[in-house]
Amino acid sequence: MKQSQLFTKTKKHAPKDEVSKNAQLLIRAGYIHKEMAGVYDFLPLGVRVMEKIKSIIREEMNAVGGQEIELTALQSKEKWEKTGRWDDTVIDNWFKTKLANKTTLGLASTHEEPITEMMSQFISSYKDLPQYAYQFQTKFRNELRAKAGLMRGREFLMKDLYSFSRNKQEHEIFYEKMKEVYMRVFNRLGIGAQTYITISSGGSFSKYSYEFQTISDAGEDTIFIIDEDKRIAINKDDFNDEVIKDFRLENVDKDNLRSEKAVEVGDIYSLGEKYSEALGLAYTDEAGVKKNVYMGCYGIGVPRLMGVLVEIFADEDGLAWPESVAPFRVHLIDVKSQKSKVESEAERIYDELTKKGIDVLWDDRDVRPGEKFADSDLIGIPWRVVVSARSLEAGGVEVKKRSEKEGEIMSVEEFTAQFN
Amino acid sequence: MKQSQLFTKTKKHAPKDEVSKNAQLLIRAGYIHKEMAGVYDFLPLGVRVMEKIKSIIREEMNAVGGQEIELTALQSKEKWEKTGRWDDTVIDNWFKTKLANKTTLGLASTHEEPITEMMSQFISSYKDLPQYAYQFQTKFRNELRAKAGLMRGREFLMKDLYSFSRNKQEHEIFYEKMKEVYMRVFNRLGIGAQTYITISSGGSFSKYSYEFQTISDAGEDTIFIIDEDKRIAINKDDFNDEVIKDFRLENVDKDNLRSEKAVEVGDIYSLGEKYSEALGLAYTDEAGVKKNVYMGCYGIGVPRLMGVLVEIFADEDGLAWPESVAPFRVHLIDVKSQKSKVESEAERIYDELTKKGIDVLWDDRDVRPGEKFADSDLIGIPWRVVVSARSLEAGGVEVKKRSEKEGEIMSVEEFTAQFN
Repeated sequence: MKQSQLFTKTKKHAPKDEVSKNAQLLIRAGYIHKEMAGVYDFLPLGVRVMEKIKSIIREEMNAVGGQEIELTALQSKEKWEKTGRWDDTVIDNWFKTKLANKTTLGLASTHEEPITEMMSQFISSYKDLPQYAYQFQTKFRNELRAKAGLMRGREFLMKDLYSFSRNKQEHEIFYEKMKEVYMRVFNRLGIGAQTYITISSGGSFSKYSYEFQTISDAGEDTIFIIDEDKRIAINKDDFNDEVIKDFRLENVDKDNLRSEKAVEVGDIYSLGEKYSEALGLAYTDEAGVKKNVYMGCYGIGVPRLMGVLVEIFADEDGLAWPESVAPFRVHLIDVKSQKSKVESEAERIYDELTKKGIDVLWDDRDVRPGEKFADSDLIGIPWRVVVSARSLEAGGVEVKKRSEKEGEIMSVEEFTAQFN
Repeated sequence: MKQSQLFTKTKKHAPKDEVSKNAQLLIRAGYIHKEMAGVYDFLPLGVRVMEKIKSIIREEMNAVGGQEIELTALQSKEKWEKTGRWDDTVIDNWFKTKLANKTTLGLASTHEEPITEMMSQFISSYKDLPQYAYQFQTKFRNELRAKAGLMRGREFLMKDLYSFSRNKQEHEIFYEKMKEVYMRVFNRLGIGAQTYITISSGGSFSKYSYEFQTISDAGEDTIFIIDEDKRIAINKDDFNDEVIKDFRLENVDKDNLRSEKAVEVGDIYSLGEKYSEALGLAYTDEAGVKKNVYMGCYGIGVPRLMGVLVEIFADEDGLAWPESVAPFRVHLIDVKSQKSKVESEAERIYDELTKKGIDVLWDDRDVRPGEKFADSDLIGIPWRVVVSARSLEAGGVEVKKRSEKEGEIMSVEEFTAQFN
């Protein structure tokens, strides 16, 4: 894409009321726009990053047998009353609304109830199990405070997968597999080295669950690293004698564990039979006995991941995206000059990479080189390629990675060959 | 995909409260699930159709220079008060809700206000224009009645594009182009022959607008065909003396025009300066004069299109998708038989087509052939391929298009060669 056609522009300053690093930089670079606290529009660059994150997650969910669906935000109270979760004191972040006929509806903050009820239409025999369904769907959460940018939204896209198994044993095989699947997602997003499978309380769902915690100064949680090699940690809030006993951590030297601030980037819960029991999701087993389906749920907040990538990789000059999710892989910058063939060389590179299926943002604007370089650092595309009279004299283009200080001159052919 | 793994199953009967043909068939075939009137979940087959429709629209919006964004459902009242559209008597289908601090928010039924305000951050000079931004975004509309299945939703995905031009003249060039773009979308969806560019009232936006009306018995509108070759029609409701004068239709023989029931599948509006004026979206022209941006908006309801495709192409046996949007292109059916190599031949076809990138649903279930055939007709995949002992004896597979009565026997090679 030619940058002269992109409707967004970078800003020198973020809005004063925006205190989080991720929102400040994403607003300044033109990725998002704030509607209100915790509610952000995604602009063209932001949509591109979101779509790339979604593609990675979708591939991994499909690979493990997940079938994509999309449930609705609007919810009627009947099925939520069956589990006791309609009441505002039980789920304290409901947004409620009313139909024209005055019936109260809720905006879903999660989807255990509707998916359990929906699945009861299709599951009746042990032959129908196991099944895995997931969605990318907009959640609404009426948070009291929302000052962490994309890290805590009142309206945000979530990937939630739900598993339906015959029994605890079948469930646990899948649950264990999902730990690997999640770690693979975070590896592909470039944050595998910072992310730990973290033992934590299961909240209202179960005694324990696993969170995926990514080390970051912006984190609201503190984790203790239990096993660096196996990527196991424990949430500080849940590190008590009972956990030590249940997970056989008696030999761990609690006082000498490394502790880190971290952000929860995903969580997986064993739901057991709570929802299937309440909503009538049962099956007949091989012996003709009726049993409740054993469930699990597996969440990832997509914009939060985008926010975490900013918090971890951005520097004082701006954003710095991992290649797997960058809005474009190459930022092509021409330093226009009347006496040279800068523009035709830039066009040649643009055409060649585009032909290879490489996303290129070509800064073809009529602005000072310094402004182009500053914008490039702020936007944070992984590869920067500069075509100037000087680079052409030196034999080609100047190639610099966003993460490195120094660039190097190489021929156009040498550069484009890296993308074969 | 193997059908034994698909979690949905077909149903003999639709829910009794479902009166529309599209919802009845889509529920029976396992594409959608009803949460409440006008609010539907999309199941794996339904998600596939929706994604294919979205891809076609996205390609055409990108081709005309559209940049994809995503705005939010939650809306604060300030910007809607500026245009007078916050009041429930002005927009009569608002869903309103409240933040924890009691501030009232709205759920957007359309996005003129937020996009105009957002664009004012980026547009200030004539050099920044024209621009085109679009989204696929969930709209909430508090409809009094919602009995038409996917044709009228209370929560539904909409593609809305907004155009920002320097003046009326520049706007009209784009507006005319969008007529062609929309017709190309409807052609690719297989409903071009039934769809007319229809003159209608511009409502609160402008004197006139264009609707795209598709002939269907399920339609709530009536149109008169004015010019078959140019695909021009006029909405019966708006066919009055003033229109006749404004569009120079004095020579049209009003009494002999063909009239048809039709469904509105898209609409394009000239917004003029109403929103830019109210929300401060202005630019400085070449002479240094400040002017309001001239706007247009262009909508397509995605589930409604899916519903229209059902209403038009389904027959008494079930759905019948155009190839461009079918959830799978080929429905492979094995009629298992112990003494022949049916299963290995089915697997060979499945592997070969999958390798070619052709979506295949393989009905590998252990059910009676009659049930497989009935389900295949109900699900409505364009190509049906049957492998049976009889077909193998006759020299290959039996290939039948969903839209045709009779199939024919051909070799596996002959069949797969059609997808090169």
